[in-house]
Amino acid sequence: MRSTMQDTQLTIPMIFRHGARVHRDSKVLTFDGAGCSEATFAEVAERVERLAAALRRLGVGEGDPVGTFLWNNQEHLEAYFAVPALGAVLHTLNLRLFPEQLAHIVNEAGDKVVLVNTTVLPLLARVAPELRTVEHVVLVDDGAPVDDALRAQLGATVHGYEELLAAEPSGVAWPDLDERAAAAMCYTSGTTGDPKGVVYSHRSTWLHAFAYNNAAPTLPLTDRERALVVVPMFHVNAWGWPFAAWMHGADMVMPSRFLQGEPLARLLAATATTVSAGVPTIWNDVLSFLQAHPELDLSALKGLVSGGSALPPKLVEGFDELGILVLQGWGMTETSPVCAVSFPPRGAAPDDPGWRLKTGRVVPGVEIRIVGDDGSEAPWDGETTGEIEVRGPWITAAYHLDPAPEKFHDGWLRTGDIGSVDGRGFIQISDRLKDVIKSGGEWISSVELENEIMSHPDVAEASVIGVPDERWGERPLAVVVRREGSAVGAEELRAFLADRVARWWLPERWAFVDAVPKTSVGKFDKKQLRRQEASGELEVRGL
Amino acid sequence: MRSTMQDTQLTIPMIFRHGARVHRDSKVLTFDGAGCSEATFAEVAERVERLAAALRRLGVGEGDPVGTFLWNNQEHLEAYFAVPALGAVLHTLNLRLFPEQLAHIVNEAGDKVVLVNTTVLPLLARVAPELRTVEHVVLVDDGAPVDDALRAQLGATVHGYEELLAAEPSGVAWPDLDERAAAAMCYTSGTTGDPKGVVYSHRSTWLHAFAYNNAAPTLPLTDRERALVVVPMFHVNAWGWPFAAWMHGADMVMPSRFLQGEPLARLLAATATTVSAGVPTIWNDVLSFLQAHPELDLSALKGLVSGGSALPPKLVEGFDELGILVLQGWGMTETSPVCAVSFPPRGAAPDDPGWRLKTGRVVPGVEIRIVGDDGSEAPWDGETTGEIEVRGPWITAAYHLDPAPEKFHDGWLRTGDIGSVDGRGFIQISDRLKDVIKSGGEWISSVELENEIMSHPDVAEASVIGVPDERWGERPLAVVVRREGSAVGAEELRAFLADRVARWWLPERWAFVDAVPKTSVGKFDKKQLRRQEASGELEVRGL
Repeated sequence: MRSTMQDTQLTIPMIFRHGARVHRDSKVLTFDGAGCSEATFAEVAERVERLAAALRRLGVGEGDPVGTFLWNNQEHLEAYFAVPALGAVLHTLNLRLFPEQLAHIVNEAGDKVVLVNTTVLPLLARVAPELRTVEHVVLVDDGAPVDDALRAQLGATVHGYEELLAAEPSGVAWPDLDERAAAAMCYTSGTTGDPKGVVYSHRSTWLHAFAYNNAAPTLPLTDRERALVVVPMFHVNAWGWPFAAWMHGADMVMPSRFLQGEPLARLLAATATTVSAGVPTIWNDVLSFLQAHPELDLSALKGLVSGGSALPPKLVEGFDELGILVLQGWGMTETSPVCAVSFPPRGAAPDDPGWRLKTGRVVPGVEIRIVGDDGSEAPWDGETTGEIEVRGPWITAAYHLDPAPEKFHDGWLRTGDIGSVDGRGFIQISDRLKDVIKSGGEWISSVELENEIMSHPDVAEASVIGVPDERWGERPLAVVVRREGSAVGAEELRAFLADRVARWWLPERWAFVDAVPKTSVGKFDKKQLRRQEASGELEVRGL
Repeated sequence: MRSTMQDTQLTIPMIFRHGARVHRDSKVLTFDGAGCSEATFAEVAERVERLAAALRRLGVGEGDPVGTFLWNNQEHLEAYFAVPALGAVLHTLNLRLFPEQLAHIVNEAGDKVVLVNTTVLPLLARVAPELRTVEHVVLVDDGAPVDDALRAQLGATVHGYEELLAAEPSGVAWPDLDERAAAAMCYTSGTTGDPKGVVYSHRSTWLHAFAYNNAAPTLPLTDRERALVVVPMFHVNAWGWPFAAWMHGADMVMPSRFLQGEPLARLLAATATTVSAGVPTIWNDVLSFLQAHPELDLSALKGLVSGGSALPPKLVEGFDELGILVLQGWGMTETSPVCAVSFPPRGAAPDDPGWRLKTGRVVPGVEIRIVGDDGSEAPWDGETTGEIEVRGPWITAAYHLDPAPEKFHDGWLRTGDIGSVDGRGFIQISDRLKDVIKSGGEWISSVELENEIMSHPDVAEASVIGVPDERWGERPLAVVVRREGSAVGAEELRAFLADRVARWWLPERWAFVDAVPKTSVGKFDKKQLRRQEASGELEVRGL
């Protein structure tokens, strides 16, 4: 017997058509530092069609990568739809990459056209001599003037975004697309080595957008919501929020380059945002500002999603005190990214620590397993740890031009995260495989140590790395940023930890710094810390 | 550039594994008329594996249809997973079909094995001599004894369900399945002609289950919910609820054969059900009972979903008075079925009639258009009507063994429903194409007339059909069921309608009956009414 169902392709144009038609009155707001410009989905949709026509005129065809070097703004959203709808591949470029990495990924992907905000144009111009494939640069003016000297450095034909759009009609004819065709690509942030490219398909993007309300039913995206998209749109498609919000008609608030605690906190209040998503370091800054500014009205805010790295319990408590729900999610560039989101399961109170501090519950569509050192699958007992492996329709099976077989295991992606999973599918990440500290044959979780240190009221940030030790092999080094005005010292912090962690976990090595280095996507950059430690740049105290 | 994503097949076993593992403590309750038996998802999952092994032993292989002639109960749910997971096809048989229709669809599908509840075994036994393919009948005991004479009538090898399961181990090895393989089939209820088979794929079933929380974010299915599955499991996979509830860990309450107003109302209260789904005629009975029994505690109930036919405004108001939200949905056997669900859009109050009485808002994943008599597409203005056409990954492209090209139009399904759609994607169905009354060259909506008549306090039910008229071509005949104790007459009802509908809509022909005939799935059976009218069975009064 054969199925009689239609063979509908799950594509980004299908998302686009739905939002443009059913949610034509929903809005995209872009912050310019003072106020927000506004456009309805219908207006954005019309511009998407013009952009697609313009890109086609520049020679962009099916399968061609188009680079974006843009902040979160309306034009970036327009590119999110126009590029894949043409059958081309949206290649989001991380604005915070080192120049040599940026040149490497533009060349490897083969971007022919790059859309760039004028405020970051100098970063692109700096690497222009290295770029081998870029023929056209399209300037998206976000307030920085561009002089002729800068234009000349680009070594490509330069266009104005608005001029290109103005020259085209709306109502472009879209090609029919196969759902397995490439739609977008993103390089990993390269914390362990060279960035590697992940290429999302139309199908994976559609399914991931469709999955959001199953992953986080506590904070659904509907046309009654307004979503502040803090996650950079150059990072894993901003966790898929632009596609999910468009599909479901949620307003999008785009913060542009204003990603510090103060402007974000003020934007949450001024726009009556109801939901937002970002990394813990950003939420930490926002929380500090909110604590100092109780006059800000966040009564519209239903909750925040935090992901990208472990959510310190102190942050959860801080937002709790302000009556703001924070859900934790887990995923990575390789996983589109949503694999797990923490929300209250049956029988659990909203503040039950049994789920609040878990990294997330595996979402339908993703399958997970924990694999021990010996290759065997660990039980779902909430205790046994191993490397987490995942599979599913929005998980990568390889990297662009690099099959990297060591990253895969019988069709499952090896995530490089160490953790356990309990009988209800709640994951607890204890560490990154490469960050685990092996001391005297036992493992110390750097994440758990960091969380405990950060729970001290005088600590703003803390990162823990393993350093070589003659006797134990490795021992933890705690790198701490004190709160403003505090003079807390290593002895006091060690004493504070004494009844919170096992005695042999207590660090003997401490360093106090002004800031912990961050990766291009806002995570603690432990590779950098290890380099600083090895080169003697860090002033380390022993106890 | 090629996508690097995994090629994961979207299959029913994927739903099964997720619920069995992540929601192992969620429950399936089956009502037996007095109390409920209970099993956890983990226990059900173990029985699913045994059932699959047993079916394989009976010779069921990939692509083979397996019939179910069962009420809503745990065993039926077990078959929902075991049959498709084997690669076989779940063929749900409507318990209320005429014998000749039942024999026709079993023969056409080619069911080799049929699972049957003992309370409905006589219905199957009656047609047994006509069945050409059934080799095995598996008895699921739901309280009716089965004697040897009845067994002998079946003309097939007879097995006991529990005996089959007891003989098998759990831990069956499942085959790898293609997502486009057939998973389940359901015949239309045949209100216009012979039932036609629709064959769902694994992919369509998975996507439809995945879609539920996007379609109805106001009433999500999560593991904090308890869902009373009133829609028969023999009818369009109970609107996909068993798959969606399992995927998301919602408890399922199965009412078995107790589908009258009183037991359903008591079950809602006794089980602390939070959500339920069914047809308006059932909700009408439940409402009447609830109104007479204010002592029933329905405080856990968040809302009801109503679909299958138009929801009379009076019913919405009645539930409103009890503080119970009713959402309207729209779809059909051919559409898996969910195409549209009505929930409050941005800016609308929960009781805003601008959405409450709409048939539903088109859900992401489904595309819709309104096609006029001349074949042109109508604007989304909320006024222009035409035939509604739909397409999408869970919409049928043909019928089993019957391509029926007249039902399709350039890849879209012609639904046979007449309606309009507004600028926000809210559909308003005004009639079935075949039920529209053409009077003097103008159209009269039978559904609108019915709703207006039913809004009279003395009317329990009303159905309107077109009857031949010498002068006007066709005129409406109103068939009315009075509320108990009422003696309301045609003159009074016509006067009541006078300032509610256009003058030329006012029916001159009235019939008062004890009950409006219903189809096998609980809709007003207008084919039957037209037959009764033509044969003079209806006592029609003229005014």
